[in-house]
Amino acid sequence: MRVNILRPEPLTKDAFAAFGDVVETDGAFAKDINQGFAQRYDGLARIDVEHGGGSVNVSIFRATPRPSPIDIRLMERHPLGSQLFAPMQDGPWLVVVCADPLEAASYRAFSATGAQGVNYARNIWHHPLLVVEPSRFLVVDRAGPGVNLEEVELDAARRLSLEA
Amino acid sequence: MRVNILRPEPLTKDAFAAFGDVVETDGAFAKDINQGFAQRYDGLARIDVEHGGGSVNVSIFRATPRPSPIDIRLMERHPLGSQLFAPMQDGPWLVVVCADPLEAASYRAFSATGAQGVNYARNIWHHPLLVVEPSRFLVVDRAGPGVNLEEVELDAARRLSLEA
Repeated sequence: MRVNILRPEPLTKDAFAAFGDVVETDGAFAKDINQGFAQRYDGLARIDVEHGGGSVNVSIFRATPRPSPIDIRLMERHPLGSQLFAPMQDGPWLVVVCADPLEAASYRAFSATGAQGVNYARNIWHHPLLVVEPSRFLVVDRAGPGVNLEEVELDAARRLSLEA
Repeated sequence: MRVNILRPEPLTKDAFAAFGDVVETDGAFAKDINQGFAQRYDGLARIDVEHGGGSVNVSIFRATPRPSPIDIRLMERHPLGSQLFAPMQDGPWLVVVCADPLEAASYRAFSATGAQGVNYARNIWHHPLLVVEPSRFLVVDRAGPGVNLEEVELDAARRLSLEA
């Protein structure tokens, strides 16, 4: 059986632009605050959660690594809102997105550092959280009425293998 | 000269309730998601940023430790919005709040872990970010028109000394 192998590339704002925001200080404008004891990097993510009467929901996800190589067999998207993940520890993690879950060529995998969050834009297909070590993430997404989750399960022939 | 010494107590939801939210999984409801590879803890902070035409602003603060013991000589509050800080690395940090900057007895100091964020409620007096090591924080606060910062500088007789 042919297996579609997916290999992660480094996560950068440019490479991720079609899928949402990379929440990081690199390449962002720094403003000195707090009597010189901090720098502030503003406007790093577009929080887009008001569709259908939604509001901001702040949560923490605690995630466990999956067996490696990671079998990509389900993709999801949120038609009513953006979804931001910011790591709460300094270690690498993984991001998988695609334009169309049924088009293997449309998949992209990214290797993120502990200094990088991502904010999936509304309606962007992405894999559930992928971690290398047990990890916590702060998540900013949408609470509210309506169905805000679509999932596609891939049949055996369409699955991908993520080799980090 | 008399010096008001402030010593941190452990950060807990109960102890911090008058000042805002502790953003942590402890004591929160867990929901299994992501095919069993994650637990989700929802609704951990009340994001209150819409006053005066405000909207959500996501930023990162990079903070540097101050000399120890920390001299508490300035407090601030945000009349138009809440302000959430979530650590992006797993290490302790410090929180100082008060009911009235001119009343020494109203001050409280808290020692937070790397698994705990805080969300200062709108109009709550707090000290700027206090870290033990150089640190990054994801910050969720307000962007928008109007003056959203009040500061009080303490004269020499009113300053406090934070001894961690």
